[in-house]
Formats: sequence, structure tokens, C-alpha cells
Amino acid sequence: MRVEPPAHLADQHYWRYDVEHVASSMDVVDFVPNRNQFVYTFGGSQPAATIKHGTALRLWSEDAFNNAITSVADIPSDKLDPRFLNPQTGPFYVEGAEPGDTLAIHIADLTPARGWGASAMIPFFGGLTATDRTSLLHEPLPEGVWIYEIDSAAQTVGFQTRRGDFELALPLEPMLGTVGVAPAGGEVYSSLTPERYGGNMDTPEMKVGTTAYFGVNVDGAMFSIGDGHYRQGEGEACGTAVEGAMNSTIIVDLIKGGGPAWPRLENDGHWMVVGSSRPMEDSWRISQVEMIRWLRELYGLETMDAYQLLTQISLVPVANVVDTNYSVVTKIAKSLLPERSAFDGLHADLRGRARSLV
Amino acid sequence: MRVEPPAHLADQHYWRYDVEHVASSMDVVDFVPNRNQFVYTFGGSQPAATIKHGTALRLWSEDAFNNAITSVADIPSDKLDPRFLNPQTGPFYVEGAEPGDTLAIHIADLTPARGWGASAMIPFFGGLTATDRTSLLHEPLPEGVWIYEIDSAAQTVGFQTRRGDFELALPLEPMLGTVGVAPAGGEVYSSLTPERYGGNMDTPEMKVGTTAYFGVNVDGAMFSIGDGHYRQGEGEACGTAVEGAMNSTIIVDLIKGGGPAWPRLENDGHWMVVGSSRPMEDSWRISQVEMIRWLRELYGLETMDAYQLLTQISLVPVANVVDTNYSVVTKIAKSLLPERSAFDGLHADLRGRARSLV
Amino acid sequence: MRVEPPAHLADQHYWRYDVEHVASSMDVVDFVPNRNQFVYTFGGSQPAATIKHGTALRLWSEDAFNNAITSVADIPSDKLDPRFLNPQTGPFYVEGAEPGDTLAIHIADLTPARGWGASAMIPFFGGLTATDRTSLLHEPLPEGVWIYEIDSAAQTVGFQTRRGDFELALPLEPMLGTVGVAPAGGEVYSSLTPERYGGNMDTPEMKVGTTAYFGVNVDGAMFSIGDGHYRQGEGEACGTAVEGAMNSTIIVDLIKGGGPAWPRLENDGHWMVVGSSRPMEDSWRISQVEMIRWLRELYGLETMDAYQLLTQISLVPVANVVDTNYSVVTKIAKSLLPERSAFDGLHADLRGRARSLV
Amino acid sequence: MRVEPPAHLADQHYWRYDVEHVASSMDVVDFVPNRNQFVYTFGGSQPAATIKHGTALRLWSEDAFNNAITSVADIPSDKLDPRFLNPQTGPFYVEGAEPGDTLAIHIADLTPARGWGASAMIPFFGGLTATDRTSLLHEPLPEGVWIYEIDSAAQTVGFQTRRGDFELALPLEPMLGTVGVAPAGGEVYSSLTPERYGGNMDTPEMKVGTTAYFGVNVDGAMFSIGDGHYRQGEGEACGTAVEGAMNSTIIVDLIKGGGPAWPRLENDGHWMVVGSSRPMEDSWRISQVEMIRWLRELYGLETMDAYQLLTQISLVPVANVVDTNYSVVTKIAKSLLPERSAFDGLHADLRGRARSLV
Repeated sequence: MRVEPPAHLADQHYWRYDVEHVASSMDVVDFVPNRNQFVYTFGGSQPAATIKHGTALRLWSEDAFNNAITSVADIPSDKLDPRFLNPQTGPFYVEGAEPGDTLAIHIADLTPARGWGASAMIPFFGGLTATDRTSLLHEPLPEGVWIYEIDSAAQTVGFQTRRGDFELALPLEPMLGTVGVAPAGGEVYSSLTPERYGGNMDTPEMKVGTTAYFGVNVDGAMFSIGDGHYRQGEGEACGTAVEGAMNSTIIVDLIKGGGPAWPRLENDGHWMVVGSSRPMEDSWRISQVEMIRWLRELYGLETMDAYQLLTQISLVPVANVVDTNYSVVTKIAKSLLPERSAFDGLHADLRGRARSLV
Repeated sequence: MRVEPPAHLADQHYWRYDVEHVASSMDVVDFVPNRNQFVYTFGGSQPAATIKHGTALRLWSEDAFNNAITSVADIPSDKLDPRFLNPQTGPFYVEGAEPGDTLAIHIADLTPARGWGASAMIPFFGGLTATDRTSLLHEPLPEGVWIYEIDSAAQTVGFQTRRGDFELALPLEPMLGTVGVAPAGGEVYSSLTPERYGGNMDTPEMKVGTTAYFGVNVDGAMFSIGDGHYRQGEGEACGTAVEGAMNSTIIVDLIKGGGPAWPRLENDGHWMVVGSSRPMEDSWRISQVEMIRWLRELYGLETMDAYQLLTQISLVPVANVVDTNYSVVTKIAKSLLPERSAFDGLHADLRGRARSLV
Repeated sequence: MRVEPPAHLADQHYWRYDVEHVASSMDVVDFVPNRNQFVYTFGGSQPAATIKHGTALRLWSEDAFNNAITSVADIPSDKLDPRFLNPQTGPFYVEGAEPGDTLAIHIADLTPARGWGASAMIPFFGGLTATDRTSLLHEPLPEGVWIYEIDSAAQTVGFQTRRGDFELALPLEPMLGTVGVAPAGGEVYSSLTPERYGGNMDTPEMKVGTTAYFGVNVDGAMFSIGDGHYRQGEGEACGTAVEGAMNSTIIVDLIKGGGPAWPRLENDGHWMVVGSSRPMEDSWRISQVEMIRWLRELYGLETMDAYQLLTQISLVPVANVVDTNYSVVTKIAKSLLPERSAFDGLHADLRGRARSLV
Repeated sequence: MRVEPPAHLADQHYWRYDVEHVASSMDVVDFVPNRNQFVYTFGGSQPAATIKHGTALRLWSEDAFNNAITSVADIPSDKLDPRFLNPQTGPFYVEGAEPGDTLAIHIADLTPARGWGASAMIPFFGGLTATDRTSLLHEPLPEGVWIYEIDSAAQTVGFQTRRGDFELALPLEPMLGTVGVAPAGGEVYSSLTPERYGGNMDTPEMKVGTTAYFGVNVDGAMFSIGDGHYRQGEGEACGTAVEGAMNSTIIVDLIKGGGPAWPRLENDGHWMVVGSSRPMEDSWRISQVEMIRWLRELYGLETMDAYQLLTQISLVPVANVVDTNYSVVTKIAKSLLPERSAFDGLHADLRGRARSLV
């Protein structure tokens, strides 16, 4: 079966978009955008395609540098075009999704689409430098590029210092820096921003086995993904992870109603919420209060009891302190709590479907 | 051998202070302060006793409520006296410690000294309420107390909701909320404050097996400990963990020179730094920059290389977002890096000595 | 002469749009939008009209509540529709304006378009309440409305307490809360947001006699105005000023190139810059660094000399601490410095032209 | 009449301390500390002298650099000793002052005690540089010193650029950067810190004609003053004003009870409150909420009415964004409100007494 691309894309010959049927009877759509199809915002774009919920997507995404950084000899400020950073694959219009609904995106597989990733120090960008916001009088820190070769057998990426000869093989731990839906109120945000609608949250929790739930703000939800990271520390201190093109297999599902105020994540082991704002204590407050709401829903707890319980059991791994908003995760181990299902057990169901796929 | 107590304490009959020799030939000092000996500040107090470095201490500490909260019927604002919160056991004068040195405190054992712990919601205190700093016009949140009974066999503490009948056994995970030395410059801070000198950092990383390194600011270092937690989530959202009296066995050692700017922690698995300031992004920046310094020292890395490596490997568990400063931990798994020893291998040595003790 | 409205607006009978010639030979355009023409974002809208630079505009703007609040009996959370807050009059496409240029908007006259204004306490909105960002567990503060009658003869607005019988006549000091151009990068922001492009800065400095300079981000600049305030304290603590419909007379001019990074303001007495971000120290840093740039341009000062001079002479009146970003003004009295002209003396020229108008 | 100095000071021959009777029958005490008498903290010091309330004091204070900076050739990091910055004159023990009382300090006169002042750029200190808190990886900004000669006839201080030959005479506007009492709870803070007890608030409002009210925390209040500025912009961007030794004439009075939570200031034209914390929005919130309390006291307003009124009339000049806490002033013009007297009309009374003195 062939899904028709939107008219304005039909003549672009790089475009590839196929649906096949797998054993599980899921629709599986392959989508490899060409350069003209990349989008750089959440909101404000025409859909790349329309999909049914329950569809699995095999999506290729370009790296956050738009492939402009390929060598340690590259000078980031020469190579990078600020208009074309963090290209997104999408957005996808999900049939039947309406404001107030919950869009579930389950990450079934993440496979690096290149044999190397790159990280760059970019002038006045990052967490330990003056920025356009923390506006100071310093000269920029030194620019530079680090290239990480993938060792597929060992499942590692290789770090090498630029000065000296220190080398290190670090575990390959693929994740997506950016996943989100269109904002409410007609707003359009750069794909570099994390917000209420998700976006560039840059949390290592966005990895294989995770289901992310987003409140839908516009008809069709209009989600997109991008910013593949081959690995990332919490905080993403210098502003760029081990950035790389990614092949992502995701399953998209829809729950009518119940849209959470902020992105919720679930994997086999944890309940999570991501808050994104400034200053960082506000990101934390957001994620904690939304988790209290979730604990109330899951366990029928009164607010102050949920606040008390949260205090003794929540983990708080920082996601990023470098984007236009800072992101903080509140995370609770399911093993500490009685078993409950969120969204009618959708995560377990998606896990099963994912296994049928890969 | 009997160590003489300070003269003003000699007549207080609860006072107990003994030194014995153990197999390892370490001095082991027992110290159980009476109520008049508690201190409520870092800096500004006479030493409880003078010890040699290398000494092991078995210290009893009162809970952060000063034992004023014992039942769910207690009203925190009635029971708590703000002058007498977070009593500290100490300070101890360490012979030979001088400004610029490094004081190492290794936690060999933490054993609850009571069969129950308590957590309280206190008006205008905590992370999800207006406070005296985030000064707003709201009425206070409802006050209340939660009592957690210890099940010694199961090694759990029991959570029960105040509304409804939800119960939960949570793992007993003892830690010290407060460990620190006297500040520099003649400053004296409430024991509720975390700062450059340590203090009320409220990180779950301050547990058995951890060695904490503090820069010494005054002769004798003048360290104290307190604020035992039977468990705590990251962030300590409501402002109080499962607070409980604690029997702590620690070993104190001294490195001449090398005092770090901010507290460094080490256990068998991780290198860690704790930053404490406001807003929370500044706490994070402090802990990240100090970790870059440590990576430079341990691995001889140039600054930008260390910044790059940190970006891809650091974990960032939040410690507290409720105290007068917020505390954030930067944490790196030793397993990701070549083996190195900090402070001449002191941590491994202390681990060995601890095993001989307990 | 009659300017044609955009086709999609031509049939809306409330629409009024005329150009006349005044003595000064300036074009003067009257524009009173109807309800369907209001826009609620910066960016993302079709132009209401295209104008030549040098044009004077007489613009009517609705109040920030979209006229939904008219009585102290109104319940804000019942009456206000979050989709339709802070309606803007515009955007206007300025012929010849290109990215990198400087758009100058001079405020020649502000006259209340109604005999009363309103302020409202809205749940979880404002500076001294929990918000969706400073997310806490409190119940909302009490809602309410205050109506301020204008006394035209006395040029005052009347404050009356809701409890008790305290009354006060406060000076009428009209200003525009919101003036800005379209953002860069295809972004679209709610008209409630202040940012680099201006927008909802809510500074009392945006009053008659002020020229505001904005960096142009898109062809035509696409500026709009709205959010008339009959008066406002600095900070706009409760989130709403004395909000009222406004008749604004502005003169629009264009400087090729030279677009400032952040909005600059000038009146006869002061040079000003507005920074908008979070936390508030970052808003301040932005406005100070941009003022240092301006001092360098105006006086040829080296950076550190400009920093030193700024330290001793800048005023820093806070603008708002309630919007999605907080805004802080850096303000320098011209009287302290040798006479200089910015943008080739445009402000003085606009003052002259304004006098010929009103 | 001769007041006896504290015993430990009696043999220091620079010490001068005299009481005379003036026409108004006020006691007038002259106090010129010698170098050994300077204190560098709030709290933690023995009193320099004991005074009766109602006493006028003529106090000499050293500049914040402790006179270590005297020439543009000085290198701040060479000359400045961090242990001896911002020396305070005091503390003074006020007879009868008890915790909960209100100490009033009225500034009757400020006269520069030298013919020149100095400002310095100090590495990693100030608002537009990385600091020990906003901890980044930049090299420090260039160090440097600016000397400002006083022109007594013109009542100006002279600014000269270090690069180029730009000169400027700026109005002499003497103020005290630091005024405060001892903190509560046995805490001791560096004299560089502004807090609830006052201290290094660095607001230009602390000038002749101002009465400052502080809540008393310890017996005798133990106030001190220092950090004379010959002038300062709001924010004190580079961290140092035009610093200079100062002759201050102040009148000290005591109100039993009524101690405000944060420093309140009053002059003939304005009611003011200073909040000091981090991030800067918290400083603002503190000053606004305390002003609402004051409006309630002065005018009997209900809280939400006071919040509404504050919103439309408060001015918010920033004080400092460079100290360990940031300080923000909320300021209300008395002319906007019905006449009221705070603290039983003490300010007007002090103004009268001040006139009899100078």
C-alpha cells in the first residue's frame, strides 16, 4: 500500500514513504525526509504525512548540526547555520487526534544511521559559558569539534581528547533529544526549545523501551522527532551530545482525552515527568507537581499524602541545563509501589507490539 | 583511655565519650551528646572534643526535629522551635588540620537509633510551597506528620497515608543529611544551610561507603554531623525526609593541602561533587566546574577536553530544592574511566579500615 | 486616499482604514480593527495593512481582557478565554523593512478609548502567586476585579478597595504594555510574551514621547501594538495593570541596518534597553550588556570603560515579573553624558513630526 | 562626658570616642575606629561601644577596599585581601534593644572623608562576569582601577576612561552601601552579604534624609555601617561603586516591638522595602510582600486590595545584582497616598532632630 505524500512534496524524488503490513497487522510506515522536508520548529508546518494511530514508523533523522560538522577540523561558527539547526522529521498528522487527547509515542528501536557522531563547542552556547541569556562580557570559550567513531561490535563510541592522547570507549546508548507535538495557541517554537509540548528535552530517558505521553494541542497532534544522540550525560553540559543521524522505529498511539499538562514518560521500570522552564527550580517544581497529579490518578492518593510519598521516593535526574528552557525529570521506580497501569495498560501493550516489530 | 570532655560539659551526666583500641589499632571514640551539647550552626561553636586524624567515631545524633515530633497527632508549628532545628553532633577539632587542607570523612556505618522516623509538612517550608524567599500571598499548605515504623527484619520503613488506607513498605536506606566543616571568614551558618563547606546538603549519596572530602577553612576543621535520614528521595520535596536519630560510625582522616573548593564525594563506584547555591542552575554549574577540575587532576585533561567528556558521562541527581541553598550533585561512574586514585588512594584505604571496624 | 485592506478583511464592516495628508505631509493612517482582526501572537499572522515608513498611525486597541471584564461582579476565570487574551492591533507590513534593519516606533499620543479601565486577579497568574511555572500545591488566591473610572478633568483613575471604603485618585499615565515585531526563525509567540523582539514588555517607559527601536527579523517587520494601560506600577505585580482600550498615535520609521539585539528605547531624557528572560538576573544582564554596546556605539568607549561607567550611572527600573519572561529596563539619563544622537538623530526628528500631528 | 571604650580597645591610641551635648540635648558620639577595630561580619563581634537610643553618632568608615586601592596602577587581585573587604564601623550595642524591637537609623549627613573615590574590576566578581556562583569556564575579565577625584565646588566626581580620553563629571551622591544589625540564630555573615538583617544592600536609597528600620534579632541590636559610596548606579554592575571613606552622621532610635521581617526605609517622599535573596525574582517577591504588609498596617487595607494597589503604584529600582544575595527595592511615593505616619511619626521627628545637628 502506498500512502500519498502531501501534494507539495510529491515531486521531491528523495522522498520515500511506504507502508507495509507486518505479522502483527500493524501498519509500518518508512519515512526518510529529504533536506527540503526538514522542519525546524514545533508548530507552524504542514504535515509530512497523515498516519493512523497504531502505526509504526521507521524514521530517519538528520543530526542536530544538519550534517554540517563532519571533522575535528571544522569550525562550528563557520559551519553551522543557526536557521537550520536541529532538523526534525515530521510533523505527522495523527488521524483522530484532537486537543485534550493524549498522544503516546513508544520507542521500539534506535539505531545509529552513521558510523560516527559529533559533539561541538559552539561560541556562547552551553551550560558553562556565557550565553545570549546569561549575557556577560567574556570572550567566547574556544570552539571545537570532537568526533566519536562507533565500534559496532563493542557497542561503544570512542572519545579522544583534542589535546593530549587520552582515549576512551564509552557505551553506545542511543536516545532522542527531541520529541514533541505542536504547541497550543498557534505558537511556534524553535526545535531547540523544550516546553510543555515536549520538544528538545534532551533527556537520556528518551530511549528504547520508553513510552512518552503528550497532551495534544492541535488537530492531528502534529508530532515530530529528531536530535538523535548516540550518548549523553545528564545536563548535556557543553550543549551538544554525541550527535548523530538516527534510524528510529516508533509506534504511535492515541488515547482520547486525558492529555497531561507536561510530558509523561513510562518504561518497564519507572514513571517519569519532564518539566522545562527557567530557573531550574521551576523545571523541578513543574515535574514534581505533575508527578503528584499522576500519583493521585494512579493510586487515589490525597494531594498531601502524594507530596509526602513523592518526597521519600522520587529520583531527580537533570536532563538539560543548556537549552532555551532547562529540563528536569522526576522519576519513580515502579518497584517501590503496588502495580498499576497508566492509560489502560498502553505501555505494556506497546512493548508487546514493539517486540513483534524488531 | 579516657578523653577529657570540654570543662563546661564535664558535669553533664548523659555525656558519654570513650576511646577504645580495636584490632586495627585505630582509636575509636564513642560520643553521645546530651541536649545541651547540640549545636545548631556551622562555625561559632567550641569543639565538643579534639581528635586525632585516623580516629573512628561512633556518634549518636538527634533527628532534625530535635525529637519534638513523635506522633501523627503533633502539629509541627506548635512543636517545632526554629532555634533548635537540625541539631548537630560536634563540632570536632581535628589535630593538625589547617586552612587549605582536606578533611576526609568516611561513613563506615549508619544504624537507626530509633524504631521509627518522622516526616512533617511545616508551614512555608519545602519545595512546592511558598516560602520566606519565594514569598507569595498564599495561605500555608496543610500541616501534618507522617510516622514511618522500621521493620528491622525486612529493612524497610512503613509509609501510611493520612487520608485513606494506603500503606507501603519502603527500603530502609540510611544517610546523613548534614555533614560539614566550619566556614571561612568567621562566618557562622545555620545547620539548615548547605554551602561551600558542606552542611545540610541533603543528598542520598551521603551513605555508607562514601568518603566526603571538605576543604578545611579553620584550624581543626571543626566538623559536625547530623540530620539522619532513614530514607529520602532526590530533592527532598516537602522539606523533610524520613528523619530519625542515628548511630553513625565514621572514620576521619586528613590530607595536608589540596582542599577542594566544594565538597567532593567518592564511593567505590563514583566520583561526585556537590554544589549548593541559588538559583538551581548555579548549583549545577558549581558542581560541574568543580568536577572538571577533578577530572583535570585525575586524568591530566585540558579544560575543554574535560568539559567535553563531562558532557557525555556525568550523571546529575538533584539533592535538595528546599534548603536555604539548593544542592545538585555531579556524579561520574568510575567504570567509564581508567582507574585512578584520588588523594593518594585514601578512599580504598578507608574502606579497608571500615571493614575492620564493623 | 484610500488604502485597500487585505482581501480577506474587505467585507468586515467594522473595519476602518483611512489615509489623510496632514500639514507635515506625513501620511496618517487610521485603523480600527474589528474583533475578527485581532491577533494574539507575534509572528504567524497576515498583515493587517502595508504602510510606508514615515507613516503616522492612529490605532485603536482593545484591552488585554478583550473587553470580557467590565464589572467588579465579573469572575475572571469565568469571563476570560485564554485563547483571546491581549489582542493586538496589527501586524503592519512596513515597506522596505528587511532582516537586520531597525524599526523605530515613536509614540506621539496615547488617549484612553473608554472612560474606565479594569484590573483583575486571575487564578495562578501574577507575581505573588503560584503559577504554571512556579508550580506549587497551593489553592489559587482569591479572584477579583477592580474597576478604575477615569476623571478626565483631573486626569486621574479612581482606585476603590473591594473590602472597606478606601478610595484614591491616581494619576492617569497611559502607556502600551505590548509593542513588538515578528520574531526570527519562523517562531510565533503568544502576545503575552516579552522577548528579544519586544512584545509584552509591560514597562511604564513605553509612553508618549518614547521612540522604541526594534531589530527587524522578517520582511516588513510585521509590528503590532496593544495592551493599553491607563497606569501601571513597575513589576505589574498582580499580572494586570489598569487595562483599557487605547487610541494610540504612533509614527513608524525605518533605519536600514543597525538592528539592535534587544529593544532600545529613547525619550528626551533617557537612553533605555529592555531585557526579557528568566531568571530575572538574566533579564538584567541582557539589558546591561546591550546598554554597554550602545554606550560603545554612542561614545566610542572601550568595553571595560563602558562597564565601569554604566556601573555608576545606570538606573534599573523593573518592568514586569509576571509574564512568561520577566522584563528589566536599564536606563541612563542623557543629562549625565555629553550630547549624542542615536540613529542619526531620528528621535529628535520624530518628536518634531509628532508635534505637527497632535 | 566621656564614654568608656570597651576594655580591649582602650589602649589603641587612634581610637577617638567622645560624647558632647548639642542644643537639642541629644548625645552626640564621635567614633573613628582604628584598623584593628574594623569588623568584617554582621554578628559575631564584640560591641565597639554601647549607646543610648536617641544618640547621634558621627562615624568614620573606611572604604570597601580597606584603602588597598589608591591608584589606577593598582592590580586589584594583588592588592585586595579577601579577609579584609568591606570593613564595618561598629557594631554598636543599643541599650534596651531586644529581639522583636525595631531599630531606626536615620542618616543625617554623609560627607566624603577623602578627596577621591575608587572603583575596581575584580576577577570573577560583579554582575556581568562569571563568579564563584555563576561558575563558568571563562578566563576572568580584565582587572582594573578607576579613580574618581572629587570636585568639592561642583559637587561632582570625575570619571576618566582607562582607554581613550573621555572624561565626565558626575554628581556626587553619597550613600552607604552597608547598614545592618546582627542576624538571628547566632548566624554570622560576611559584611559583603545583604540579608533579612540588612547588611550590604547597596541601594542608592540609603542616603541623607532616609530612615532605615531593622528588626532587632539580638540584645543591643548590634548595628554597624560602612561601604560608603560617593555615587552608584542601580545594580552596581561591576561590583564596586565609587568607593570611599565616609563621615556619616546618623541618629539611632528604638521602637519597642514591631520589628519588620525585612528592612524598611522611609524618606520624606517614599515608603520603601529592600528584599535580598536569589534568584532576583525572589528578592522582588520579598520586597513586594513586605510592602503589602506595610500598606496593610498603614492604611488598614485587606491583603488583596493592598496587592492590587501595589500593582498600580509601586516603583522597583534594583539595588544590587552582584553580592551574595541580590537586592531589590519596592518604593511607593507618599504623594500618591493619604498622609500616614509609620512608627508613630518617628521619621518626621528624626528629620527635625537631624536639622538641629547639622
